[in-house]
Amino acid sequence: VYVSYQQMAQAEHLRPDGIEAVSIVTPNHLHYPIARAFCEVGIHVICDKPLTTSLPDARALEALIKARGGLFFITYNYAAYPMVRQARAMIASGALGKPRVIQVEYAQGWLATALERSGSKQAEWHTDPARAGPGGSIADIGTHAFHLARFVTGLRVTAVAAELTSFVPGRPLDDNAAVLLRFEDGARGSLWASQVAVGEDNGLRLRVYGDRGGLAWSQERPDELRFAPLQAPVQILRRGAPSLSADAARVTHLPAGHPQGYLEAFASLYGEIARVILSARTGASSSDALVSTIADGVEGMRFIDAVLRSSAGGGAWTPV
Amino acid sequence: VYVSYQQMAQAEHLRPDGIEAVSIVTPNHLHYPIARAFCEVGIHVICDKPLTTSLPDARALEALIKARGGLFFITYNYAAYPMVRQARAMIASGALGKPRVIQVEYAQGWLATALERSGSKQAEWHTDPARAGPGGSIADIGTHAFHLARFVTGLRVTAVAAELTSFVPGRPLDDNAAVLLRFEDGARGSLWASQVAVGEDNGLRLRVYGDRGGLAWSQERPDELRFAPLQAPVQILRRGAPSLSADAARVTHLPAGHPQGYLEAFASLYGEIARVILSARTGASSSDALVSTIADGVEGMRFIDAVLRSSAGGGAWTPV
Amino acid sequence: VYVSYQQMAQAEHLRPDGIEAVSIVTPNHLHYPIARAFCEVGIHVICDKPLTTSLPDARALEALIKARGGLFFITYNYAAYPMVRQARAMIASGALGKPRVIQVEYAQGWLATALERSGSKQAEWHTDPARAGPGGSIADIGTHAFHLARFVTGLRVTAVAAELTSFVPGRPLDDNAAVLLRFEDGARGSLWASQVAVGEDNGLRLRVYGDRGGLAWSQERPDELRFAPLQAPVQILRRGAPSLSADAARVTHLPAGHPQGYLEAFASLYGEIARVILSARTGASSSDALVSTIADGVEGMRFIDAVLRSSAGGGAWTPV
Amino acid sequence: VYVSYQQMAQAEHLRPDGIEAVSIVTPNHLHYPIARAFCEVGIHVICDKPLTTSLPDARALEALIKARGGLFFITYNYAAYPMVRQARAMIASGALGKPRVIQVEYAQGWLATALERSGSKQAEWHTDPARAGPGGSIADIGTHAFHLARFVTGLRVTAVAAELTSFVPGRPLDDNAAVLLRFEDGARGSLWASQVAVGEDNGLRLRVYGDRGGLAWSQERPDELRFAPLQAPVQILRRGAPSLSADAARVTHLPAGHPQGYLEAFASLYGEIARVILSARTGASSSDALVSTIADGVEGMRFIDAVLRSSAGGGAWTPV
Repeated sequence: VYVSYQQMAQAEHLRPDGIEAVSIVTPNHLHYPIARAFCEVGIHVICDKPLTTSLPDARALEALIKARGGLFFITYNYAAYPMVRQARAMIASGALGKPRVIQVEYAQGWLATALERSGSKQAEWHTDPARAGPGGSIADIGTHAFHLARFVTGLRVTAVAAELTSFVPGRPLDDNAAVLLRFEDGARGSLWASQVAVGEDNGLRLRVYGDRGGLAWSQERPDELRFAPLQAPVQILRRGAPSLSADAARVTHLPAGHPQGYLEAFASLYGEIARVILSARTGASSSDALVSTIADGVEGMRFIDAVLRSSAGGGAWTPV
Repeated sequence: VYVSYQQMAQAEHLRPDGIEAVSIVTPNHLHYPIARAFCEVGIHVICDKPLTTSLPDARALEALIKARGGLFFITYNYAAYPMVRQARAMIASGALGKPRVIQVEYAQGWLATALERSGSKQAEWHTDPARAGPGGSIADIGTHAFHLARFVTGLRVTAVAAELTSFVPGRPLDDNAAVLLRFEDGARGSLWASQVAVGEDNGLRLRVYGDRGGLAWSQERPDELRFAPLQAPVQILRRGAPSLSADAARVTHLPAGHPQGYLEAFASLYGEIARVILSARTGASSSDALVSTIADGVEGMRFIDAVLRSSAGGGAWTPV
Repeated sequence: VYVSYQQMAQAEHLRPDGIEAVSIVTPNHLHYPIARAFCEVGIHVICDKPLTTSLPDARALEALIKARGGLFFITYNYAAYPMVRQARAMIASGALGKPRVIQVEYAQGWLATALERSGSKQAEWHTDPARAGPGGSIADIGTHAFHLARFVTGLRVTAVAAELTSFVPGRPLDDNAAVLLRFEDGARGSLWASQVAVGEDNGLRLRVYGDRGGLAWSQERPDELRFAPLQAPVQILRRGAPSLSADAARVTHLPAGHPQGYLEAFASLYGEIARVILSARTGASSSDALVSTIADGVEGMRFIDAVLRSSAGGGAWTPV
Repeated sequence: VYVSYQQMAQAEHLRPDGIEAVSIVTPNHLHYPIARAFCEVGIHVICDKPLTTSLPDARALEALIKARGGLFFITYNYAAYPMVRQARAMIASGALGKPRVIQVEYAQGWLATALERSGSKQAEWHTDPARAGPGGSIADIGTHAFHLARFVTGLRVTAVAAELTSFVPGRPLDDNAAVLLRFEDGARGSLWASQVAVGEDNGLRLRVYGDRGGLAWSQERPDELRFAPLQAPVQILRRGAPSLSADAARVTHLPAGHPQGYLEAFASLYGEIARVILSARTGASSSDALVSTIADGVEGMRFIDAVLRSSAGGGAWTPV
């Protein structure tokens, strides 16, 4: 047990049985210094999102990791749900044809009141620019929505037009974010993230429409995927069915109908991270592990940065 | 049976038992000339949306009606669903507190292919600027979504930032519309209308979040309304329940659990229009009829016009 | 306007422009005498269910109709929903293989309290053996559930084992009915009808499982049919889709996504009845009309009768 | 690692650091001998359901445990879902008034074909009387459904009228079970268990209707509970909400909207078992642990036994 992360990094570095990797699950402003400390002593880093509180920090961290050669993982945990993997595999295989419209949202209601002034530590730091960074809902949950769309479609967002709003009086950060999206290859979409959506718990939802089919997934019913092939009946694909992709099967831990949830997604994610770390040591293949790395973290920061600039600039289309 | 609307207007005007009102259910470009012809001879007009194919025409029609004194109704039929009425009554009564976020969408998939080149008359005129006007999906279904949000919340949209897209090659009009919304009193929202959303039939959906509650309604399950009071369990309000508002009860024709649908909404709408026409003749009150009039038609055209200008102007915020 | 049904039958019979058919929508105990009166003067009869209040009356009516040659229709209106027709067509075509298990239920909550002692006329006669007959929930809604299973699967119920219960103190008729079913060809099932199921409005639901697939339908979401082919993804079939059967298409009045409901089912039913009456006059074919006739009415009475006897006899298996 | 359970029981008994408890997750026919072996050497037993393959064995085991004084737990894991706990707490507190109707079902489709002849070990033993016992679906999943109803309502089943069927040719055990239920205090209900319901994965569902409200829960959407108070809007209660009962909160491991599933229910169950074992050692209270014990196991066997006898006896009402 250490008094500081600096001490921990140094001590673990020197121990013969020191840790191979560290998990950073602190408020956002500590991601960068802690990640740097461990990276510098050769300990792999597993970090919560958003990567940092500023894009320059994110780029500096990326440069450091590149220089040092350690592994870095960012815990976009929703990407580890089996039916999210299934959606990704289907789009990659052409089941939707060319993606046209991508609608993603992340709706929560827990910050609909000034909870940060009622003693909630979670609410306090999430609404404090010094700890959360310059983005509120856009950084906390908007990045998850952004990453989900990015991960499932494989498409980069090239530009955004955004409006951030802070609805709760006195709150310095946005608690609602509306963003229009331009993707590479001509796809278009919208992203909505809100923490003042009363009645919503953890409503991360994605819909993708291509020229040959549509897909819909909702985090609160994670074991289902709605698939609408063009001019054919809608199908409800269910986790555990034998016809699903290898990517979905790999993170399926229970038979169909036995609900898998949030903790299992984290378990799958950490399992893959462990495999990648092992394969770095042993040379064993881990190419099927769909982990997110420093590049994904930086891309998330570029998204947040572009949204902040667009919103500040009157909603103009802003390149990511 | 007449050879033209002009002939019909003249003849009916002269008959002692001539019609009191005419329904216009033609392609958009004929709304204005037909409405004018009947208005000029003192016959009330019931017209489909969008009101006209240009804002100047809409204003000219409004001026004519004002000058002539006839009645004019626009068939925003979704506003006649009982649970839409219930939502409106609840917001008016303060059940949600002050509205903050308004998300509305209208997703269809029927134009995901070039149906207009396969002999579909509906697809032909809806994608032809000469008949549909300069707006495609934004005019055909976006106006419904706009009106639904307007009707339920009672709030005017003050500005829009929009991107219209035409996905099907060779189609001259938008088949997808993404719009950020600013409402009076500080509410914010998004509107998405699409006719290329494969797997969607007639997905008109509205969610309103205030500082004391949230509401959600979906046209394809019209008899339900999801109501989430702040920090209390979500309620599923069902058409026909005795606790609903008078506005909902007035258009409830069946007991709870016996599905009412699209045709019943039209029946309710025409019933109300008939009552307003009668009351104009007899002086009987019809103040509880929630009909849409020329002002609503013009407001819809101002919305379309602002969206078209915003999209053409690179998505800049544009006043409505 | 007549003072009695007897007078009406005589007078209409004598008029040159007399009615061709009469609709009986009275309490159950009047079905038989009214039907007889009109049948005897050659006027076709359209009658609500259950057919009569006793099986002997039902058989007497059947004999009379046979002797007189008039047409008789019983309004099992739920059989006129498009997706019920679709289910029937699919089973007939072998999409489920051989039916094995048939679960049907009709759950309502409106009689959970002693509503009959609060001035509700509907509740009064439905709970009065003199007017409703010896069956309460089993006759009022159990027959609908029975007919739905019969209509969709095409299978006769050969025997029942039943328990009828009256939960509300002082109520002389059953308000809850639980029935085990044996169908011809070895299928098995359960039927549950209740009018004390608090929170249920009009929950008529059918599930059929065969050796090659399963189907589920719910009256409160009538435009959908859940189809699970063996070892393949579940499909959600939606009314209005081009791939549906001719039987479903014939009673489809609106495009997909525009809800059709209860009144449309009645309209379809009466439309078919009118076609059958016309074809009796003109010789035009109406073989595709799926109307229910006196035989269906008698079969429903035999079902009620068997359930009453089984329940009175300690639940023993009782032939229908 | 031991060559037999007998050896394991003896060896662990003699070790100073021997196990305190053993988990039995074998086919049914081994539950009894293994449980006996460990019970006899004073090691606590955690056993899968059904308790044994015959009622006499169950009673013998109960007597042994009583004589020896060890602890015995049966893993009715569905009782550890938070919203099942919530339902139980609500009924205990009178939120539904007096229970009247209890409908429970457990529908699966995995045995719709002769999977036992395709090399599936799970299917082999589940359909083999020598290993599964004389009950097929009724023992494997019917007991879960029975226990769920028993646990949530607190009511004993006093009598059953049942029909067991084996649909797949050549299968010696039932794969479908339909049971009418009589509960103490006058409640009535039905239980349906099936393993040939094509399209069903793990459809355990419970509905309870009292004179003041109704409740519905479905295992495949475990985080929701539908609550219908008499003459008031339906509520959707969600796991994690602050208003839920202490019993639900105790097994809630994640905030609302972050799905908890099947594994978490097992974790909660084993956590409670561990607490009870510890409290037996330390005297600490564990009275809030809602574990199932030998008495519940025996009661489940009595239910299976009564169903088998009723079905064999032509469906006669049979006391449990």
